[in-house]
Formats: sequence, C-alpha cells, structure tokens
Amino acid sequence: MKYITSGANAAVKRARKLLQKKGRDTDGAFLIEGFILIEEAARSGIEIERVFLRGADADGEMERALEAIRGFARPRADGPQGSDSPPRGIDIIALSENIFDGIADAATPKSVIAVARKPSYATAARGDALLVLDRLQDPGNVGALIRTAGAIGFDGVLCVKGTADPFSPKAVRASAGALFRLPVYEVGDPDEALGTLRPEGYRVALLDAGGASLCWEADMTGRMAFVVGNEGGGADPRFAKAADVTIRVPMTKNAESLNAAVAAGIVMYERRRQEGSDG
Amino acid sequence: MKYITSGANAAVKRARKLLQKKGRDTDGAFLIEGFILIEEAARSGIEIERVFLRGADADGEMERALEAIRGFARPRADGPQGSDSPPRGIDIIALSENIFDGIADAATPKSVIAVARKPSYATAARGDALLVLDRLQDPGNVGALIRTAGAIGFDGVLCVKGTADPFSPKAVRASAGALFRLPVYEVGDPDEALGTLRPEGYRVALLDAGGASLCWEADMTGRMAFVVGNEGGGADPRFAKAADVTIRVPMTKNAESLNAAVAAGIVMYERRRQEGSDG
Repeated sequence: MKYITSGANAAVKRARKLLQKKGRDTDGAFLIEGFILIEEAARSGIEIERVFLRGADADGEMERALEAIRGFARPRADGPQGSDSPPRGIDIIALSENIFDGIADAATPKSVIAVARKPSYATAARGDALLVLDRLQDPGNVGALIRTAGAIGFDGVLCVKGTADPFSPKAVRASAGALFRLPVYEVGDPDEALGTLRPEGYRVALLDAGGASLCWEADMTGRMAFVVGNEGGGADPRFAKAADVTIRVPMTKNAESLNAAVAAGIVMYERRRQEGSDG
Repeated sequence: MKYITSGANAAVKRARKLLQKKGRDTDGAFLIEGFILIEEAARSGIEIERVFLRGADADGEMERALEAIRGFARPRADGPQGSDSPPRGIDIIALSENIFDGIADAATPKSVIAVARKPSYATAARGDALLVLDRLQDPGNVGALIRTAGAIGFDGVLCVKGTADPFSPKAVRASAGALFRLPVYEVGDPDEALGTLRPEGYRVALLDAGGASLCWEADMTGRMAFVVGNEGGGADPRFAKAADVTIRVPMTKNAESLNAAVAAGIVMYERRRQEGSDG
C-alpha cells in the first residue's frame, strides 16, 4: 500500500475535484466517507474504485478491514486514472492526515474515504411511486428525502437541474445509504420531467403549503409522482399547472411551516398508509 | 449608534460566549441571526436586548428597518450588560465585518444578529401533546423537530439533558421561528421526564424502528408524550420500560432507516390525522 504525503499526487488531486459538482459530473465519480457507508455502497452494487485511509495505517488494521469490502466490490469496467493502480479491484492508499482532511467534508473526519462510480440507470420512469425534487437547495434535505423515499418504498427520484447534487458528500451522508439502492436521475427542467412522466401514466401531485387538498383527503394511491419544490420559493409554476392534485400537510397556524424533508416524509407515509401495505 | 471595530468590546465578548451552550446557560440569552427571524421573535414576545449590524450602516438603512422591531419589543425586565446601553428598548450596535463574522454561525452570514433572552415557562406539563427529545445530537434535527411540533399543533417540547441545545444558532435557524412560540423545557434525565409526565396523565409513546405497533395501528389520540431517542443509539431504556406503546414507521426493507426528524414528523402527523382536526 502506498503512503502519500503530497497534495500534488494525481489521485489526491482527482479526489479533491470530486468535492465539487463539476468535478463529479466530469468524472462520473463521487466520494463516500466512512467505513459503514462504503461497505453499504459495495454491498448495494456501487463500484468502489479506490479507498483513502487517514494516516499511515502502520499495523495494517484498516487495510485488513477493507478486504471485506473488496469481497463485495465489482471489477471496474474501465481502467483507473492513476497508472500506478491495479487494473481491477480496489486501490487502497494511505494519506498523511492533513492531505486526507483536504478531501474530507464531514466536520468530524472519518478514517476512510472512497472514490466510487456514480450509478446510471436506463429509464427515469419506473415503478409506481416517484419523488421529484425541484431545485431543493439544502444537500441535507436532498439526502433526507432520498433516505425517506427508500425507506417508504418509492421507486425512484428525479432531480430537476438546479437541485443540490445528491452525490455531494453532505447529501450522501444524509441519505444514509438509500442513494446506493434507489435510482436517482437528473432532468434538465420541469418540462423534461413532465414529458418523462406523462406518457407513462403518472398522476402528478404537487406538495404545497397552500395546496387544495389535505393529504389525508387526497387519493394518493396508484401510479404517482410527488413534486417537492425549493425550500423558499416552492416549485416551478409549470408543475403547479400540470398537477392533478396539490397537497398540503395540516398546520396549526399560518405562521408555522414544515421543513421540506419532513413535509415530504409525511406525504410519502400517507401514500403508504392509504395503500395499506404492512410495514 | 455605536460603531465597533474591536473584538475586545464587552458586548462583542458577551455575544461570542453565546455561541456556546455554557455561555447561553450562564447568561440566559441566545443569538438570533437574520432580520426575518429577529422580527418573528419580537412578534412572538421574545425579548430582544440588542442587535448587531454587519458593517457601518452608513446610510442608516438597517437602523431604520430595525425601528419596526423596536415597536414589537417588550421592555427588558432587568438592565442590559453594557453600561453604555439605554435602560430599555433595543440597543443597536454596528460592527466591522470581521468582528461581526466572529459572532455569526451561518455559513452565509446574515447582516443582523440579535441577542435575545431565553424564554422561561412555569410548567413542563401542559396541553395534550408533548414531544420528548432524548439526547438527539444533531442541532438541525432538534430545530426541525421543534418546527414540526409547532406546525402540527403540539403543546411543548421536553429536552432530556444531553440533547443538542435548542438555543444554538443552528437549532434556532432550523426551528424557523417555532422555538419562539412553543414552550421548550430542559429536564435532567429520563426519570425526571417521566416524573413530570406520569402524574399529569400522559401516556408515553416511544418511537422505535423495532416498535411493536405500526403508527397507523396505534391509538395516538388523547393526552400523550412522544419520545424520540438519539439518532444512533435510540432512547434510554427507562423510556422503553415506561412506554405504554412503542411505535414504528413502516419501512420497506431492514436496511432502510429514516432521519429522526422525518420519522417523528410522520408520527406527529399521524396523531393529528387520527384526531381528525382539519388543517
């Protein structure tokens, strides 16, 4: 195993670029922090290319722990970026602590960070329940929404361009692994989202604090797409125009409001309750 | 209006201490960032002592805007800390940007920060629906839980010692103003919480991923206290032992989980649905 103490190393420079959306889009890769999440990603079929360790790992304890992950990992379809990496399997590199911390996002750094391939999916319209995120700004909200969609049994998440990137370190962390199992797609704008949903027979439900129907009064069964808009400004008017139903969560007074991830969680739960599936 | 460029100023030093829980507990005060939240606090009867502006406010625009807040503000019961402050009303101080940023918590600093008195309440057992937070660690979760409790119409929140402080800047922000209207109490431990609730006739519902009852099957009407435990470790065993009912939210697979604020939001909503109040 290599031990790197220079930020000029190619693998480190590449990882640092993955802290930004542009770098992730260009590279098709993202970062996963912490052993638990990395193991969950590998088990879910996410391709792990490389793992960085914090510190010299003098006794090899961490490298041995990562052998378990190697067992789950799929071979890479294409070669690694660094010429020094093996052609398949997971590359393990130890970094000096200050270099490691430069590619870490968490306030309390974990001891491992993985470089993983972003998964890709053939179609954005699959299953009976989709979540559509329209320019949500907070990566914690985006991650929590994906986590809830996975837990409640939704089939996929469409992110309209301008939504905080689900593959940012904060969103990955907040998704608690659901991102590795649930198909997440990016679409260019509301028209593209609606153009994907309509021919496939999805009814469109818009979550809105001023929605016409209380969530326990609206029929939320069957094939539906649930649109959640920006935390401050709500969803694009095209969604409001196209919506078959606008749904509000009950609130006590006008002054009150709900966090977007909590409000959407309530609506996703209510759909599940109406469908009567056991849990 | 004073313009201060030194971090050694008494008002600045005091404000900096309010970034820490110890400072807030000693002083009985907390910080509120941003004009919208400060105005909401004043309208809700929170006592605003002092407002800091970012920069010299050369044209006095901000000071004029704050006159509106002066109109809502209650006179302070006791005198201000600085000898240079007027005996009542709100003290307005402009700070140089770097000094201001030293008392700001938000990543994108707002242009105003207020020092406000922490509200105090006579009793922790009031109303029919209470939320109990047992050592939640994430201030964003604590704030979001208070926000949801306020929106769904709960009557108060008990925080067991060890819970992230609801009056930290992050929690204040995440509560979106609900903290200013909803009584929030700190209790020393689970026994004190249960000792407060039992004589007043509250049934205790524990939220737990392995709970015996699905939330739509449990009777959640009437006088109840809903206990939410630590994000990783759950609630103290004393709550499990004392609980009249343990409640789980439906989930698709064992691997999935919900964010604590989302799970509690679903349960609070479900109570409201069962009680049949309109929204």
